[in-house]
Amino acid sequence: MAVRLAAFPIEHAGDASGLAQALAGWPDLGSLRELVIFAKVPGPATLNDPSRELMQTVFADALKTAAAPPIRMILSVGCEGIGASGGWLLAEDGVAGEGAARLMLVSTETDIIPEAGRGEPAHVLAVACAVRDAMAQSGLAASDIQLVMVKSPVRRNQANATGRSRGAAALGVAVALGEVAENAITPEAMDDPSLFGTRAMTMSGTETGRAEIVILANRAGAGGNLVIRSAIMRDIIDIGGARRLLESADARFDADGVLANPDDLGLVLLKAGIAPDGRLRGRPTHIHGTDIPADKHLRAAASGVLAGLLGSNDAFITGGAEHQAAPGQCLIAAIARETT
Amino acid sequence: MAVRLAAFPIEHAGDASGLAQALAGWPDLGSLRELVIFAKVPGPATLNDPSRELMQTVFADALKTAAAPPIRMILSVGCEGIGASGGWLLAEDGVAGEGAARLMLVSTETDIIPEAGRGEPAHVLAVACAVRDAMAQSGLAASDIQLVMVKSPVRRNQANATGRSRGAAALGVAVALGEVAENAITPEAMDDPSLFGTRAMTMSGTETGRAEIVILANRAGAGGNLVIRSAIMRDIIDIGGARRLLESADARFDADGVLANPDDLGLVLLKAGIAPDGRLRGRPTHIHGTDIPADKHLRAAASGVLAGLLGSNDAFITGGAEHQAAPGQCLIAAIARETT
Amino acid sequence: MAVRLAAFPIEHAGDASGLAQALAGWPDLGSLRELVIFAKVPGPATLNDPSRELMQTVFADALKTAAAPPIRMILSVGCEGIGASGGWLLAEDGVAGEGAARLMLVSTETDIIPEAGRGEPAHVLAVACAVRDAMAQSGLAASDIQLVMVKSPVRRNQANATGRSRGAAALGVAVALGEVAENAITPEAMDDPSLFGTRAMTMSGTETGRAEIVILANRAGAGGNLVIRSAIMRDIIDIGGARRLLESADARFDADGVLANPDDLGLVLLKAGIAPDGRLRGRPTHIHGTDIPADKHLRAAASGVLAGLLGSNDAFITGGAEHQAAPGQCLIAAIARETT
Amino acid sequence: MAVRLAAFPIEHAGDASGLAQALAGWPDLGSLRELVIFAKVPGPATLNDPSRELMQTVFADALKTAAAPPIRMILSVGCEGIGASGGWLLAEDGVAGEGAARLMLVSTETDIIPEAGRGEPAHVLAVACAVRDAMAQSGLAASDIQLVMVKSPVRRNQANATGRSRGAAALGVAVALGEVAENAITPEAMDDPSLFGTRAMTMSGTETGRAEIVILANRAGAGGNLVIRSAIMRDIIDIGGARRLLESADARFDADGVLANPDDLGLVLLKAGIAPDGRLRGRPTHIHGTDIPADKHLRAAASGVLAGLLGSNDAFITGGAEHQAAPGQCLIAAIARETT
Repeated sequence: MAVRLAAFPIEHAGDASGLAQALAGWPDLGSLRELVIFAKVPGPATLNDPSRELMQTVFADALKTAAAPPIRMILSVGCEGIGASGGWLLAEDGVAGEGAARLMLVSTETDIIPEAGRGEPAHVLAVACAVRDAMAQSGLAASDIQLVMVKSPVRRNQANATGRSRGAAALGVAVALGEVAENAITPEAMDDPSLFGTRAMTMSGTETGRAEIVILANRAGAGGNLVIRSAIMRDIIDIGGARRLLESADARFDADGVLANPDDLGLVLLKAGIAPDGRLRGRPTHIHGTDIPADKHLRAAASGVLAGLLGSNDAFITGGAEHQAAPGQCLIAAIARETT
Repeated sequence: MAVRLAAFPIEHAGDASGLAQALAGWPDLGSLRELVIFAKVPGPATLNDPSRELMQTVFADALKTAAAPPIRMILSVGCEGIGASGGWLLAEDGVAGEGAARLMLVSTETDIIPEAGRGEPAHVLAVACAVRDAMAQSGLAASDIQLVMVKSPVRRNQANATGRSRGAAALGVAVALGEVAENAITPEAMDDPSLFGTRAMTMSGTETGRAEIVILANRAGAGGNLVIRSAIMRDIIDIGGARRLLESADARFDADGVLANPDDLGLVLLKAGIAPDGRLRGRPTHIHGTDIPADKHLRAAASGVLAGLLGSNDAFITGGAEHQAAPGQCLIAAIARETT
Repeated sequence: MAVRLAAFPIEHAGDASGLAQALAGWPDLGSLRELVIFAKVPGPATLNDPSRELMQTVFADALKTAAAPPIRMILSVGCEGIGASGGWLLAEDGVAGEGAARLMLVSTETDIIPEAGRGEPAHVLAVACAVRDAMAQSGLAASDIQLVMVKSPVRRNQANATGRSRGAAALGVAVALGEVAENAITPEAMDDPSLFGTRAMTMSGTETGRAEIVILANRAGAGGNLVIRSAIMRDIIDIGGARRLLESADARFDADGVLANPDDLGLVLLKAGIAPDGRLRGRPTHIHGTDIPADKHLRAAASGVLAGLLGSNDAFITGGAEHQAAPGQCLIAAIARETT
Repeated sequence: MAVRLAAFPIEHAGDASGLAQALAGWPDLGSLRELVIFAKVPGPATLNDPSRELMQTVFADALKTAAAPPIRMILSVGCEGIGASGGWLLAEDGVAGEGAARLMLVSTETDIIPEAGRGEPAHVLAVACAVRDAMAQSGLAASDIQLVMVKSPVRRNQANATGRSRGAAALGVAVALGEVAENAITPEAMDDPSLFGTRAMTMSGTETGRAEIVILANRAGAGGNLVIRSAIMRDIIDIGGARRLLESADARFDADGVLANPDDLGLVLLKAGIAPDGRLRGRPTHIHGTDIPADKHLRAAASGVLAGLLGSNDAFITGGAEHQAAPGQCLIAAIARETT
């Protein structure tokens, strides 16, 4: 059941050529399972931006042409700052593995969450339930799980609809992983920043009525050479925290503090947040209250922080960390190739 | 003639309270000379944004109230990403100094540059001439000069007017410093990216008809404890280059690669650029061709790069590096307190 | 007590030259009362746009220079579409009038409305109380009043803060004028679109903690030759409704349906709204859900509707008609010179 | 050869349901020719907006499903203000007609225009040549032609690339129709606003390397009951000019000046322009120099002007009238059902 990973380039929202080439590189494609695409899609990332819809359409065509098995896509629009667009294709082969804990993938989804329940406790519980069921079916313990990626449905015409959607999904994962008590999930909890998990990275998706979920865990016997690690950065510029996470995935840093073995790193994911008052270590930012939405400021700034550290602008960066960390903190994760 | 430096906070474009307090901290204000304010002003940074005009108005009021000597202001709007707003007040006292090379300030300006000549060779030569004259009058050699800050006038209704304004001013400084030959300054030169200097940081200013210039140099006997250093970063994520520049100003870095002695650093300035094709070490960015102007992407990304390195979002970051470095490169400078 | 009106041009947010000239045209300025400026200010109209603050600053300077009496300013940023920027100066002389009902002005303000109460019933009641008091003091009946202009304070960090501020002020006027029952003002009422008045035009103002109010009424004996009329348009393209309102103010229209006697019209004011679903007579608009805020779409579209009818782009157009009319409807008002 | 016209709704850039229904309404679809879709597509209309690409993809699917003959699509993104999204499907049947002059369609295209030639005289001449050839082949005289719609390729990284593309195409049509002399087409002509035609409506299209052209003419014997008329409005608020054009297509207006027989009007097209200085009948607009591009201001304002006149927001409105009319003027056209 070893997981494999292929990165592929995306030049624009209609470009599936990189994916097609990645698929062609896996001749045993038909026998793979738990296929997942994570992708950063370029586009305006405005409310009426159809970039994700177009990307999904051209990806679906490429997958059909390659006769690929069913796949789950978690697409995020917005490559502000110096963020690169690009995609990552992950899949498991059916071969039994052995040895040390290695990356495994479990994907699942909720039923359709009724509009009125989105961003509300019902949304939280639907996600919690789906994650728990998937854990039970695949025999995963909460301690095995490093990261849960969720694409979460949005309620139309709701104030802060995307933030509430992300927050509800994050709380759902936190409940399933035992980080937040289920009975804490009241209507008031949705606005309570003191409730949060530390292993969910959630994106709102207007194109889905279900929460779509990908669990990334390490388990002995999974096989392959990939591992996943995640950690909390105390704020968006916590280079020390980011560095220790990467080092836990066998990254090494040169004398300038820049990643020395980039080829061993398969994928870095960062969920960028900022304190509600927009201040960073005592100084003002202007993330809140400008004509550019906060998540664009965050993705742009995070692209710089991370690219400085990695020596590359290639990462999966999203903004809006509601209930995914304490206010002002960020979640970082890395999939790396274990060489030992 | 020692230079002193006071940083002050700015919360919004109408906030001169920080400046007022900084001025109050200098009881000998009336005897100072070469006063300069550098400030990052929060605001939308759109074409019709009056933030700089408002900032200038409230600063002028504060200066008048404090009975300050004439002052030159170089205000730059735009604190995208995690960039902090804030200002820096510099001035020379009249006291003769001695000893090692220390920071000195020389400010000057051109005559009004006629609209038709802006962004053209006439603009270059006006700046070159003003810089040369100031060097001659103050006895500065080109090799003394680390940084020349220019606020440069803009031609209305010109394609890429702000870029051409910045580029012309940068070429003018480069000519004065002997980095570019004066006879290379033809109309075609304005669009020739192979012509550039390495010590000018230029900002376009619709509010001025003159190029306003502040020369920052180190000279033996200047007195005080400030020095300035500048260098070129090979690209916006060249942490190594930035680090070596800061180390040349006695900065030290901790095991994570983060600045360990921030109190010794008075002001870091960064001019952010990107390659014309928008690629960074082989990977695409989406800086060009989105609804967010390129300079906002650059400032936002640079705010992350620099804050990761400095452990603080406090810096003077501007975007648009035309003729101020080779295409894709960036200029960084630091004013530091010499403690030895 | 005749009211006089002078229109003046504004070219940019720092331009008070038109106001200065208008003030100079009133040699008896010192004896005037109830001075009011209404102005459409050009500017980005983003959250962090200081255009209004700058305009206020330069207006204050011009008024001080002219030794003008205290004045109330209702400034609105945003001249999207083909809307012109410009201002209108109104004032009463102290001369007793006689004869038919003519325009009179009463301005007032609330106490500072605490942040927590803004956009809430307390806000409504504060406005209602201030309007009622002003009516009582000036002997105005509700039926005399054609229009109440309100600049209304905003609660920071509230979802839809500007909309709630406008809505609360409008409900306050409606209560004072007997259009909405005071006991209907519950917390739920703030979100109830079935509650609305028809004579309030409200603008949110982040620069004020009080609601600032200008009542425009017609009263016999007021003197002068100005009258004000207001009416509801059934939607933003209800040319018939707009035309009948203007005709009630003695406007005449040519064979093309364009205003034939523009010189008799002093000022047209329009508050533009759209149905919550964004549909107009059955067809979709894209006012909601784009990167351009709804009020900018509305002001831009209204600038076209009105300019087509008036043959001029000169009007005071604002967007956001919460509780100022039934959903989807608009409020129009005109100050005209009675020539009979 | 009678032309038929079917309007269909578009709710979002991925919505081809309206087109599918329109196609289903034409059971003889396979025998039709000269099929054309004009559509206003909702979307952010930013440089990196893929709305048009997505619309084209879903339209292509719908056409394939319906086994439709080859079709030409002229899609324009941007429904600012109160503009409705929507599409119009036109086609000719093969039946010979007789009687009075009626609408006929001729579509054609140029070869691929090399990048370097776009927005240059080569672009003009390519369009002129294609239009002339199509006229010759179909026996159309210049005087038969009321409107030529062109989707015109864009040169990357050119200042004002979209404006130059539109302008070059418009000059090409003007040359073909004898409105501009061919020998006037020098490089300088591209920037000469005194050169213009009056019957081309041109849209830039980054998705095409060819200019794609649809000629709309009236010819005796064409059959059917549709006619097309076009005219120049002296400016964007020239209600009289617009009204006379519509009356020439048998429109009638009620006492308020609003269209009384909307069902007889099949499609109204408007190309909105503004004077280079942004002034309208002496008063400033702020169309130039804001954060919202000029063409969005223009489309939004025109949506209001036209909807006021038509009593409906349903029209094909585009902005950017370079060389398509004298500076500041606009082109309006209508396809109407002749009922006599």
